[in-house]
Amino acid sequence: MRVTISRKAHFNAAHRLFRKDWSDAQNISVFGKCSNPHYHGHNYELIAHITGEIDPETGYVMDMKVLKDLIKEKIEDEFDHKNLNEEVPEFIDLIPTAENMAVVIYQKLIPHLNDKHDLSVTLYETPRNYVTFSG
Amino acid sequence: MRVTISRKAHFNAAHRLFRKDWSDAQNISVFGKCSNPHYHGHNYELIAHITGEIDPETGYVMDMKVLKDLIKEKIEDEFDHKNLNEEVPEFIDLIPTAENMAVVIYQKLIPHLNDKHDLSVTLYETPRNYVTFSG
Amino acid sequence: MRVTISRKAHFNAAHRLFRKDWSDAQNISVFGKCSNPHYHGHNYELIAHITGEIDPETGYVMDMKVLKDLIKEKIEDEFDHKNLNEEVPEFIDLIPTAENMAVVIYQKLIPHLNDKHDLSVTLYETPRNYVTFSG
Amino acid sequence: MRVTISRKAHFNAAHRLFRKDWSDAQNISVFGKCSNPHYHGHNYELIAHITGEIDPETGYVMDMKVLKDLIKEKIEDEFDHKNLNEEVPEFIDLIPTAENMAVVIYQKLIPHLNDKHDLSVTLYETPRNYVTFSG
Amino acid sequence: MRVTISRKAHFNAAHRLFRKDWSDAQNISVFGKCSNPHYHGHNYELIAHITGEIDPETGYVMDMKVLKDLIKEKIEDEFDHKNLNEEVPEFIDLIPTAENMAVVIYQKLIPHLNDKHDLSVTLYETPRNYVTFSG
Amino acid sequence: MRVTISRKAHFNAAHRLFRKDWSDAQNISVFGKCSNPHYHGHNYELIAHITGEIDPETGYVMDMKVLKDLIKEKIEDEFDHKNLNEEVPEFIDLIPTAENMAVVIYQKLIPHLNDKHDLSVTLYETPRNYVTFSG
Repeated sequence: MRVTISRKAHFNAAHRLFRKDWSDAQNISVFGKCSNPHYHGHNYELIAHITGEIDPETGYVMDMKVLKDLIKEKIEDEFDHKNLNEEVPEFIDLIPTAENMAVVIYQKLIPHLNDKHDLSVTLYETPRNYVTFSG
Repeated sequence: MRVTISRKAHFNAAHRLFRKDWSDAQNISVFGKCSNPHYHGHNYELIAHITGEIDPETGYVMDMKVLKDLIKEKIEDEFDHKNLNEEVPEFIDLIPTAENMAVVIYQKLIPHLNDKHDLSVTLYETPRNYVTFSG
Repeated sequence: MRVTISRKAHFNAAHRLFRKDWSDAQNISVFGKCSNPHYHGHNYELIAHITGEIDPETGYVMDMKVLKDLIKEKIEDEFDHKNLNEEVPEFIDLIPTAENMAVVIYQKLIPHLNDKHDLSVTLYETPRNYVTFSG
Repeated sequence: MRVTISRKAHFNAAHRLFRKDWSDAQNISVFGKCSNPHYHGHNYELIAHITGEIDPETGYVMDMKVLKDLIKEKIEDEFDHKNLNEEVPEFIDLIPTAENMAVVIYQKLIPHLNDKHDLSVTLYETPRNYVTFSG
Repeated sequence: MRVTISRKAHFNAAHRLFRKDWSDAQNISVFGKCSNPHYHGHNYELIAHITGEIDPETGYVMDMKVLKDLIKEKIEDEFDHKNLNEEVPEFIDLIPTAENMAVVIYQKLIPHLNDKHDLSVTLYETPRNYVTFSG
Repeated sequence: MRVTISRKAHFNAAHRLFRKDWSDAQNISVFGKCSNPHYHGHNYELIAHITGEIDPETGYVMDMKVLKDLIKEKIEDEFDHKNLNEEVPEFIDLIPTAENMAVVIYQKLIPHLNDKHDLSVTLYETPRNYVTFSG
């Protein structure tokens, strides 16, 4: 009786896509306007999916409130209203593409989950672009 | 050529999360305001996903109208505008969490499907919380 | 320079539509399955619209955070996870239709707003049905 | 580090579901009003999902702009504001059900992707009906 | 106590924008690909807004079920799965732009409403384009 | 026969809310985390509403494609992937709150519209917060 529970969360952040070890021309050639040195930003929509057995006593895979609070503490409080490149340690040396962000979010959440649970992370960068990482 | 077809449906219901064999204090400690004895309710959004071969004659995995009518008869007519704890037999002794509801919906639909078809059920309890069960 | 700012909020509640002074038959004839004595429920989406001048010092009509907190205190904390008929004083003698709910929400919010501000309330009972009251 | 990136696109088209080798009565019996000889139409929402390794140099699985342009050239320019039965070669002898359309879209995109990438195609025919094909 | 109630409905149709009294070149110059002689189509989302006094006896401006059935009978049954230019009498000599469609829908609904009620019609042609007509 | 046509557009930008003539403490006290000196950002959703008579010759209030191109040239090309405070001239001395942004967008579009047309601008800063300015 494995069920997946999914919880949506939200944060707003600024970022830019660029590599310090590349010239401006190279950054613009690969990342286009996403490499704007003055930054741009997004309303990120995050969905954390947890798969596990239903606890027959509670009918829960995991208490959604616990999951909500975990996402708030580990992700929203760290990323919301931040400049990802400048203020979030994980992206000092890692380009904050949606792909890398999904992996980082996964790595920040997984240590706090029951080890019988599987995690998958979906991150919407815009309503038209999103990524999913499942470990 | 296995394709998944997905059909959305909708029902509104009241429920509460609680166990008769627990004290009020225990219910509140585990289920919080979701255990309110006067009930609360939701607009549930249901998505039934059917996976199977495309029938080369019709181009259908399954006629969406047949699927729509099946969901209406087996789920909407049973759950819509109902109190799940009081009026839906499956939840007399089963806590109507979203997880348990997805399993019950799966069990109510699967006997009516072609046995070459796989079923998966997604149930939104709110726009931010949803669950998926695939048998 | 009058601008309208709009803030969405959310609450889940149980209700039924019925009049104590009508027979069951009369209630069913007018309200149909919405009069189910065991209640049903909804995920209500509320939008509060405030119209006023932009404060040239802050660029705000009103601080969205103040509006968010006001809606939380006056509406969400009063209505969320409640049975409207049984637990919300305004609906002891008033049928909790979406229309009446929008008027009640308006009346609960308006005393706390700047008297130069106009208020309008939109309430979604389901994704397909909603109402608006502007005083 | 396999991640799935998803990109939404949109096209509007007319179609009808029918078989030339069936009588009108047979077409109506199987396809109902979807077989209307004067056609009807949809706003199709397409999501292309690409799964692959993150390129450590760019942080991308694939440049979303390249994916967006590929979908535009191969799908939107071919299908948008068209009559699928009359004007799109793939559907001259293939019924343009959502299922068949998802397979055709998959086949039109896959030759242009890196062979280390997996493709999955989701196609919404209406907000309530959609299909997914993963090869 | 005037409140506006809003009800969403949905229909799929084919259409083209063109004038019989114009040359093909003129039609293409004004309407572009929307004038494709083979038609294209849309999932139209319709919202009917009715403004009136709350009936103190029922708490309703108007029974949403009555409004839903009226929209179904007068609009959905007439337009759904149809070719607007070929099969809907109102558009034999009127170009089925979203603007004209909103006016026609208004004119088809208004005779059936209480004359103390005001009507406004919103019609989405695509998720990005919509129109509103209020009489 | 005045009809309102509405067109949605989208841009992503970074911004911060602060006044150069205030101390950091004052900025934080009024704008909170929105004043973060490293910026944050949003996916802005813009809706331009144009109200006017239907042209009986075309059935259009205004060609949606012309409106789409106008929004692209005057707003999207100016704001998208930009830092509003640093790179958009209108916000050098004006705080880029959603309210001020709606007024600026109105002022940038209105000179390019037919003077018989009315304009209203809706700007979503997040899915839960939006503003409307109608001149």
